[in-house]
Amino acid sequence: MAPNPTNQSNSILTLNKLELRENGFKSMDEAEKLRENVLKPMDSEQLRENAHKMVDFIADYYKNIETFPVLSQVEPGYLEKLLPDSAPNHPESLQNVLDDVQTKILPGVTHWQSPDYYAYFPSNSSTAGFLGEMLSAGLNIVGFSWVTSPAATELEVIVLDWLAKMLKLPEHLLSSGQGGGVIQGTASEAILVALLAARDKVLRKVGKNSLPKLVAYASDQAHASMLKACQIAGIHPENIRLVTTDSSTNYALSPDVLGEAISKDIAAGLIPFFLSSTVGTTSSTAVDPLYALAKIAKGNEMWFHIDAAYAGSACICPEYRHYFDGVEEADSFNMNAHKWFLTNFDCSPLWVKDRSALIQSLSTKPEYLRNKASEANMVVDFKDWQIPLGRRFRSLKLWMVLRLYGLENLQCYIRNHIKLARHFEELVASDSRFEIVVPCKFSLVCFRLLPAHNDQDCGNKLNQDLLDAVNSTGKIYISHTVLSGKYILRLVVGAPLTEERHINAAWKVFQDEATVLLGGV
Amino acid sequence: MAPNPTNQSNSILTLNKLELRENGFKSMDEAEKLRENVLKPMDSEQLRENAHKMVDFIADYYKNIETFPVLSQVEPGYLEKLLPDSAPNHPESLQNVLDDVQTKILPGVTHWQSPDYYAYFPSNSSTAGFLGEMLSAGLNIVGFSWVTSPAATELEVIVLDWLAKMLKLPEHLLSSGQGGGVIQGTASEAILVALLAARDKVLRKVGKNSLPKLVAYASDQAHASMLKACQIAGIHPENIRLVTTDSSTNYALSPDVLGEAISKDIAAGLIPFFLSSTVGTTSSTAVDPLYALAKIAKGNEMWFHIDAAYAGSACICPEYRHYFDGVEEADSFNMNAHKWFLTNFDCSPLWVKDRSALIQSLSTKPEYLRNKASEANMVVDFKDWQIPLGRRFRSLKLWMVLRLYGLENLQCYIRNHIKLARHFEELVASDSRFEIVVPCKFSLVCFRLLPAHNDQDCGNKLNQDLLDAVNSTGKIYISHTVLSGKYILRLVVGAPLTEERHINAAWKVFQDEATVLLGGV
Repeated sequence: MAPNPTNQSNSILTLNKLELRENGFKSMDEAEKLRENVLKPMDSEQLRENAHKMVDFIADYYKNIETFPVLSQVEPGYLEKLLPDSAPNHPESLQNVLDDVQTKILPGVTHWQSPDYYAYFPSNSSTAGFLGEMLSAGLNIVGFSWVTSPAATELEVIVLDWLAKMLKLPEHLLSSGQGGGVIQGTASEAILVALLAARDKVLRKVGKNSLPKLVAYASDQAHASMLKACQIAGIHPENIRLVTTDSSTNYALSPDVLGEAISKDIAAGLIPFFLSSTVGTTSSTAVDPLYALAKIAKGNEMWFHIDAAYAGSACICPEYRHYFDGVEEADSFNMNAHKWFLTNFDCSPLWVKDRSALIQSLSTKPEYLRNKASEANMVVDFKDWQIPLGRRFRSLKLWMVLRLYGLENLQCYIRNHIKLARHFEELVASDSRFEIVVPCKFSLVCFRLLPAHNDQDCGNKLNQDLLDAVNSTGKIYISHTVLSGKYILRLVVGAPLTEERHINAAWKVFQDEATVLLGGV
Repeated sequence: MAPNPTNQSNSILTLNKLELRENGFKSMDEAEKLRENVLKPMDSEQLRENAHKMVDFIADYYKNIETFPVLSQVEPGYLEKLLPDSAPNHPESLQNVLDDVQTKILPGVTHWQSPDYYAYFPSNSSTAGFLGEMLSAGLNIVGFSWVTSPAATELEVIVLDWLAKMLKLPEHLLSSGQGGGVIQGTASEAILVALLAARDKVLRKVGKNSLPKLVAYASDQAHASMLKACQIAGIHPENIRLVTTDSSTNYALSPDVLGEAISKDIAAGLIPFFLSSTVGTTSSTAVDPLYALAKIAKGNEMWFHIDAAYAGSACICPEYRHYFDGVEEADSFNMNAHKWFLTNFDCSPLWVKDRSALIQSLSTKPEYLRNKASEANMVVDFKDWQIPLGRRFRSLKLWMVLRLYGLENLQCYIRNHIKLARHFEELVASDSRFEIVVPCKFSLVCFRLLPAHNDQDCGNKLNQDLLDAVNSTGKIYISHTVLSGKYILRLVVGAPLTEERHINAAWKVFQDEATVLLGGV
């Protein structure tokens, strides 16, 4: 008979000899052994002991991170074969679980923190960000209203004002005016809440039955979250204008083309209401001309959103801040501290000019959440600025990043990555088999292997094969995009551990695999 | 001149004597001191050293948790006065930050993990859940697609199948059929994605211009997230039916009343499309009669959602599982592992019967995310099951909770809280000055102080005063609701550290404050 501690007062932790025997334990030793393994739901000393073990596990992971294939090389369904098909009845030891993490989970992990990770955009972990996550998980408060932990709301307001100042955002996006900042989970949520606020604002004016007439605009380089936000908000698919861009503007949205599209829609009786612009598009880090776009948006009473999810971080450096010119006119502005700003995922600050528009769309006031501070309008309740009700104490990690590194070190961090990206760009440019597709603006290099003259699909398959080849080595991980029909390789420098030696090694992987593909071996 | 390490290669970490002087340091000692404090963006040994310090800080927090006022007693705006108004240029030491956490942040924290926390619903932290959070933050992967970390997606599928089996959910909600589970951040997101899937499914049939005709139903006891989801999805406010409940059904939704409302709407040319039912409402843990409601929903081709955010956890015990009878007919089912299931916030499992409906509403396929595994339809990409794109490796913490505690201990954990709630209910019932308002079903006790005969507002102000009085002591924290016009006190047992002695002490606080309020002192 298996040990069967069926209730708390009769648990393995408190049984005497006789009870142990009744519960199926052969000896005190056996019980002692299990007893050691059994965690109480919460106990400060058990937490201390086991969390120290976990710290060492994680520190060792970083110590050895270069030994793993960057892109996981497992096959779909691999884990099902390694784990049981139901949860255990009895507790297991932490050591067992950590062994499983090492042997079963880590092989299925794609190592975003590896210095050789160059795919998509980065997702920075840092010591400061990790410590902030620990503290937030330790306190485990749910900060939906001010009263549920005043410090969570107030620190978020303060830290987002700090960050706004670092980015030199206009005064009216700060908490002192009609606007303010809020930490969203992701840029997708940020653009969604902005779009909802814009939708409801215009519908309050023109009547809710006009929803089918609302038109939203962005470039065809805008992130897919724009399209998804429109779908969620019920914007008709045929009223979503993803304006075509090309290499003539380096894939930035052309104000002229946008203006024409808007005029045409107005003439057709439609209602333009939302314009999303991007500083640093996903495919090629294109920068839309904010100032000119803002003018169009204002002229047509449209909500003007700026998505600077990736490149926003760079604008803490004075030499990149000019990309934000025009932000003075933004109704909402978003960047992801969890991308390239050393703040562990997730942390996506959003600033709005008119917080009341957001609150009107998203607030709920059920009786069971009412409290004196909220009723008196003395406080911010961030539940009314976001989709979910509950929210983590995410400002802690951003606060710790800002304090433990400081502005100047953060600027160095960004500049170093940009320097490394330029170095990679030079390496590519020095090899005549390759071409740089768009000039490197931040830390993304868009390039490709040049096809032979008789290549029927202009090198698309060739570059797809090169992508697969380099990623299959496990030595680096990159991703791709398509620009004007061309399949392009994207290498983004942005992992905290990446150094020049990694960039040089990465380039060698491309050269070697290209040589193989081109039949040079 | 302040130390000014302006770039990475010239940073405080690598300066020699001369350079130090040039950078404004008076002595090697001063530099050494700062050097010790400066964190690299990521370094395994710095992470190890500092994370061990953080473990001790957090373990000490739990050790001393009973010394804090449960409800933070700070005034709005307190933190602004304690912190500078901009981020530092230079790094600070972890010790400085931890000192600030102790002296400036913790006073503004409402201690959800205190054994004396009884407000809203619980938000469990546990050693296992905390370890899982650490590991997830340490790996810091972003698991939007399978390829970005196969283990993250596959472990989520496996663990949600485990949990579904523990809850004895019908086979078709598991991953083996057309359905499956996904971890949402919150129940608000769960009901939103279910509603969007339902909306788009019916609109595909009746045409997208019929949006103004869609009607959604729930009881007036449904969580506010139902209303918010409808707002977001563009359901017209006048088409949201929150059917009135009363004490005759213990605040459960009456199938007869619902049936009438639906018939009336159909007769008016409207289209009923969504019914949300609740197992364990927020105000009083009422349980809607799932089986009868499901029949109505099916008969009218409506999407049938079940919100078991809080009470779902109890249904891992056979004696409470009957509350789920009728779940066989659910199109979607949600519970919050982050409430009463020892899994740190956030972790809100949602199961759906037809995953393709969810995916049709929420999927995006931008070129830059395409990859072979996804294109071949060999894998699950959870980005298409949720609002955000990015997602944390949240299954780790749920997996660790299930393994480090095991089913039987989890059942004990739930039963112990319910036993403690019943104990509190008996204490209240034994004092004739109080009344129990609805019988305790799970671990929530709804009660109030009886008013004097000549009390004009039937005791509402009296109980509001009692709430304020007990919460102001800092000894316990409870919240309230209103049922049939009566102001009710809610005490939920659910914090991992709560023991019988805490319940007895809590009751004494109520008795003492009641005595004061009733003029007995």
